Amino acid sequence: MTSILIIGGAGMIGAKLARRLAADGNLDGKAVTSLTLADIAAPPLVAAPFRVDARPVDLAADGAAAALVASRPDVIFHLAAVLSAESETDLDKGYRVNIDGTRALFDAIRHIGDGYRPRVVFSSSIAVYGAPFPPSIGDEFFETPLTSYGTAKAIGELFLADYSRRGFLDGVGIRLPTICVRPGKPNKAASSFFSGIIREPLAGQEAVLPVAETVRHWHASPKAAVGFLMHAGAMDTASLGDRRNLNMPGVSETVGGQIAALSKVAGDSVAARIRREPDPFIQKIVSGWAENFDAHRALSLGFTADRDFEEIIRIHIADELGGTWVK
Amino acid sequence: MTSILIIGGAGMIGAKLARRLAADGNLDGKAVTSLTLADIAAPPLVAAPFRVDARPVDLAADGAAAALVASRPDVIFHLAAVLSAESETDLDKGYRVNIDGTRALFDAIRHIGDGYRPRVVFSSSIAVYGAPFPPSIGDEFFETPLTSYGTAKAIGELFLADYSRRGFLDGVGIRLPTICVRPGKPNKAASSFFSGIIREPLAGQEAVLPVAETVRHWHASPKAAVGFLMHAGAMDTASLGDRRNLNMPGVSETVGGQIAALSKVAGDSVAARIRREPDPFIQKIVSGWAENFDAHRALSLGFTADRDFEEIIRIHIADELGGTWVK
Repeated sequence: MTSILIIGGAGMIGAKLARRLAADGNLDGKAVTSLTLADIAAPPLVAAPFRVDARPVDLAADGAAAALVASRPDVIFHLAAVLSAESETDLDKGYRVNIDGTRALFDAIRHIGDGYRPRVVFSSSIAVYGAPFPPSIGDEFFETPLTSYGTAKAIGELFLADYSRRGFLDGVGIRLPTICVRPGKPNKAASSFFSGIIREPLAGQEAVLPVAETVRHWHASPKAAVGFLMHAGAMDTASLGDRRNLNMPGVSETVGGQIAALSKVAGDSVAARIRREPDPFIQKIVSGWAENFDAHRALSLGFTADRDFEEIIRIHIADELGGTWVK
Repeated sequence: MTSILIIGGAGMIGAKLARRLAADGNLDGKAVTSLTLADIAAPPLVAAPFRVDARPVDLAADGAAAALVASRPDVIFHLAAVLSAESETDLDKGYRVNIDGTRALFDAIRHIGDGYRPRVVFSSSIAVYGAPFPPSIGDEFFETPLTSYGTAKAIGELFLADYSRRGFLDGVGIRLPTICVRPGKPNKAASSFFSGIIREPLAGQEAVLPVAETVRHWHASPKAAVGFLMHAGAMDTASLGDRRNLNMPGVSETVGGQIAALSKVAGDSVAARIRREPDPFIQKIVSGWAENFDAHRALSLGFTADRDFEEIIRIHIADELGGTWVK
C-alpha cells in the first residue's frame, strides 16, 4: 500500500512516470493507493486503478509545500525544475524554484515530524559536473557546475543528503543523463537540440544542429529514466549509507555517432534533414558538459541503462510514433 | 589602495587577520585605506595606520548585508559561521547563518552592480568531505559532508563559484584545515579538543581527550591560516578558472603523534596532563572527518603550510605564551 506524490507531474518524465504507475498499479509489488500530480499548473489526470488528483503548486510560495505533503505520501518524486537555459538567463527565478522550492519541500516534510519519513526521489542532473573532465567520470568526482541550473541541483543534492542523514526523509538523488529522445516540442533546456535532431527528422521536418558533430554527451531514453525513478522509489536505501546521490548509467555518444545511428535505423534521407547552424550561446553551455561516466555504483545497485543510441532511437519510434516514421 | 571588510572579525582568525593587516599596513603591497570589522557583536577595534571601524551585523537579517557592503570594500573576508557542534544541535540556526547569511552577502554584492566586483575570500572547511576516504584526498574528490556545518559550507562554495562565474564577484574559497592551536577557551566546534590537548597542558591545566589516539586529522596553525587568507585576498584568480574552491595545505598527524610532539617540545610532564575520557558524540562526528590531503593545487598556487606538528606547537608558544610554558 503506497501513496505517491509526483512534483513536476506535468513534465514529460513526470507524466510518463504517472502513466507507468497507472499501468502497473503498483510500485515494486506494493499496490498504489493514490497518486497526486503537482506542477506549477495542475497536470492532466491519468486513468488509473487508484485515486488520482492533480494540483497546481508553487513550491517556493509560503505554505505551499506544507499543504502538498500534509497527506503524508509514502513516496515523493521531486522532478520540478526551471531548466538550464532559463536558469542561466533568469538567475533569480532559477534559484527560487530549484533551490528555495526544493528546500521548502524538504522542510515541510521535516516539520510534519511524528515519525513521518517518506522516500524522496530527487531528480538531479549531470549538469552538477563541469569541464575539464577525465575521459570517464567516476562516482567520486567533484561537482563544479558551470551553470546556475547545475549549481542549484548540486545544492539540492546536499540538502537531500543532510536531511536523510538526520532522519527527516529517506532520499535518493539520481543524476539523470540528458534525456533523449524527448517527445513534443523543443523546450528551454540548452540540451533541447539533442532530441530535436532525432525527433524532427523522423517527423519529416528539418532540425537545427547548433554544435559540432564531435560533441560527445551522455544520454538515457525517457523509458530508461522512468525505470531509474521506479527503482529509486522502491530500492533498499541501507546500502547507500550517507551517500545518497548517484550517477545514473547511460549511453555515451558523439553527435556524429547519433546521426549515424539515425541513418542506420531510419535511413540516410531522414538524417539529411539535419541542418548545421552553430550557436555560440548553446555551444558554450554544452562545452562544459560531461561526456562519459563510469556509473559503477548505480549499476551495482540495480539501475539499468539503454543498450546503445540505436536503442534510444527505436524506443522513440515505438513509444511515440506507433512504430513508424516519415521516410 | 585597498579597502577591506572582515565578516567574522571577532573570531580568532578574523582578529588575527586584522592585527596582521594593521601590522603590515598593506595587502600584497597595496596600502590598506580602511578596515571594517563586522560580527554578530561589534568586534574590538585594532590600532592601525588606517581607519578601522567595527559593526554588529546579522548577515541573514533583512537589509543587513546590503548595508555592510554599501561602501564597496575591495576585499571581503567572509569568516563568519555557526560552528560544527552547534550546527548539528540547532539545524535552523546553522543553516540560517551559514547558508542564508552567505547567500545574502553575495546577493548584496550582486545588487550593487555598476561594475562592483570585489575579491571575496570565503572560509570553507574540510568538513565538506565525509568518510569513507582514500588514504589522501585529492583536489577532485567529491563532497559528501556528514555534518550540517559541512553541508552549509559546501553550499556556500557552490554559491561562491556560481557568482564568480557570472561575474558578480571574484571569489576564492579556501577549505581550512582544523586550526590548531586555538588560543583562549574551548569553543562549540566538535574539533575543539584538538587545541585543548596542547593548549591546556602548556598552561599547566588538565585537558580532556574524547577520542582515540589513532585518530588522524589535518591541521594548520592560526599563523598559517592568516597566511592563506592574505594570499587568497591578493592572488591572481585568472589561474583558478571556474574552480574557485581549494583545499589548503596542512599537516596530517595522529592524536598520538600530536601528544608525542608535545612531549618533545615541552616535556613528558606536560603531555601527562592529558586525561582520556571517550565521548561518543564527539567520536562519531570526528570519525567522519578527513585524515590527509594532497593539496597539490593550492601548493602550486603559492599557499604554504606549517612544516610539521612540532612547528604548530612552537607557533602557539611563541605567539600566545611569550615563548614559555608551565613546566
